Amino acid sequence: MSARNKAVSAYEAHVQEGVLLNANESPTNFDEQILTEIKASLDTTLFHRYPDDSYRSLKEAYAQVVGVEPDMVLCGNGSDQMLGLLIGCAMAEGKTLATLAPDFGMYDYYVSMYGGTIKKYPIAAGKPLDMDAFVAFAKDADMVLFSNPNNPTGNLVSGADIEKLLQTIRHVPVVIDEAYMEFADESVVGLLDQYPNLFVTRTLSKAYGAAGIRLGFLLSRAENIQKLGALNVPYNVSRTTQTIGEILLRHAATFAGRVEQICRQRERFAELAPSLRRFTLYPSHANFVLVEGEGLDDLLAAFKARNIVVREYAGKPYCRITIGSVAENDQVLEIIRKVDESDADV
Amino acid sequence: MSARNKAVSAYEAHVQEGVLLNANESPTNFDEQILTEIKASLDTTLFHRYPDDSYRSLKEAYAQVVGVEPDMVLCGNGSDQMLGLLIGCAMAEGKTLATLAPDFGMYDYYVSMYGGTIKKYPIAAGKPLDMDAFVAFAKDADMVLFSNPNNPTGNLVSGADIEKLLQTIRHVPVVIDEAYMEFADESVVGLLDQYPNLFVTRTLSKAYGAAGIRLGFLLSRAENIQKLGALNVPYNVSRTTQTIGEILLRHAATFAGRVEQICRQRERFAELAPSLRRFTLYPSHANFVLVEGEGLDDLLAAFKARNIVVREYAGKPYCRITIGSVAENDQVLEIIRKVDESDADV
Repeated sequence: MSARNKAVSAYEAHVQEGVLLNANESPTNFDEQILTEIKASLDTTLFHRYPDDSYRSLKEAYAQVVGVEPDMVLCGNGSDQMLGLLIGCAMAEGKTLATLAPDFGMYDYYVSMYGGTIKKYPIAAGKPLDMDAFVAFAKDADMVLFSNPNNPTGNLVSGADIEKLLQTIRHVPVVIDEAYMEFADESVVGLLDQYPNLFVTRTLSKAYGAAGIRLGFLLSRAENIQKLGALNVPYNVSRTTQTIGEILLRHAATFAGRVEQICRQRERFAELAPSLRRFTLYPSHANFVLVEGEGLDDLLAAFKARNIVVREYAGKPYCRITIGSVAENDQVLEIIRKVDESDADV
Repeated sequence: MSARNKAVSAYEAHVQEGVLLNANESPTNFDEQILTEIKASLDTTLFHRYPDDSYRSLKEAYAQVVGVEPDMVLCGNGSDQMLGLLIGCAMAEGKTLATLAPDFGMYDYYVSMYGGTIKKYPIAAGKPLDMDAFVAFAKDADMVLFSNPNNPTGNLVSGADIEKLLQTIRHVPVVIDEAYMEFADESVVGLLDQYPNLFVTRTLSKAYGAAGIRLGFLLSRAENIQKLGALNVPYNVSRTTQTIGEILLRHAATFAGRVEQICRQRERFAELAPSLRRFTLYPSHANFVLVEGEGLDDLLAAFKARNIVVREYAGKPYCRITIGSVAENDQVLEIIRKVDESDADV
């Protein structure tokens, strides 16, 4: 006997020991000022009461940061939970979701949980998406969803191309997972007013370095958010996460500065790329880079020897490396360079 | 266009202003000692890292409190999320869940989200469940789930009766939602080893007065927990909730004392009950009482006039009142007594 009557795609959690460059987290914890504000907020936290399910002040704070109205925001236990809600509302047996391959593994999880089918349009790292071909591929699906910038390739689809998609696919939800969009500059949040079937998910896990608090957002037109809000699980975001989120958003400028630092560090990877012989280090629009090559096993072994944890993909010739602190990137760049050269000597 | 392609049962969040006796919360926030420990824990919280998805130390802490092995525990974003996981694994189009009427509204929500059908066996407040009849009712269902003590009646099913259910229904999950079991003494956690299809959900929202942190648990045999853990959404519990949960569980004795206080306050309601003429105040095994009577509108008006918020049920002749602080209960008992007498004068 088992509770499992269905074939559901499981999702594997990340390793959490070593130099962690496997989960696209920030290399830096909150600063002292923010920590002090969080501690002070606990004095007035009503731990014994359910969260205020309207999440009004948090919605207002996030709306201001991204430039939409508060009634266009829904708060989630990570953007994962918002993706789950959207997929749960649209997917059932006989329904199909169109996405890219590769893309974020949680899409498979949720679609399988709701009995739907997922179909994937193959993309190549470093190459632009052929949007006309993707539109033709996706046009009969019941939902379209992909990450932009793409996880794990780091590819970016232009806002203009997404608008092309929206001009054809008008009757099913088009969901753009912008978990990494702070590291790029092609958000389609500005298109929400114009396209009633557009949904955008965002998170504080990446650019705000707050993966531990589990806070994400869903953005769409107010009438969509109202309907989805009624269908969302109540009290999905804890009082502490709500309060910490509001504090972080008051420090949006601090985190914008950190994003700039990461983008400058990303340049170091871009500068190394042309000199490599064994590996392709793809250009990235996110806080990670994808490295591919036949010598991947050597590279992974070298990382392991230095206790550096990167994201591996079973059966794939590439790995994804989070852009870390300056010191961590020094190490990673040095290892890539050495392993790349070592073959030249053979 | 809408993301909603399905008929999903929405769930209404609680009112959160006034004297709050509508959500079965604790009347008391954490004490200073616990608050101090929570603040201290933030100094070592890795906010920028995803939670440790094994939740090992939290599982160990809860396992010790309830007397099971740590590998029999799964941690949830409230017990709601654990119920959602169980229902999601068992329900699909053509699948049926058997429960009681009335019972917790979230069961409808999750079953409808996964396209299943819910069937409800009617129970009466203050009357024992006819377990033979319920077994006959539930025996063809794909999952059996009810709260015990029952929300909102406060009824309690004996462990012996649940064992009778388990002796007949052996091939589909039997889920007992023990959100309020600390206020009673008929937990079936001790039966988990014996019945591989038994699942128990628990929460820190009620007896631990921690509704704001969103932390619940699923208990079952280790092989079930392993399977369900692989199917659960990763990082469902934030780092702060995990840490606060561990602190609360170290103070289990404090909360056991608070539960005793609530149970003593419950006695005051039981003592009033026999003298009432217009209302039936049902015996309860939880931290709330159900009041029924034709004069309900008068009673609700009297509560509103004093800014006391209780849980109303559209179209039903009863309301549910959380057992609050001594002062709150003084008020509530006085109002019930007065409204009850007022009719006698007419």
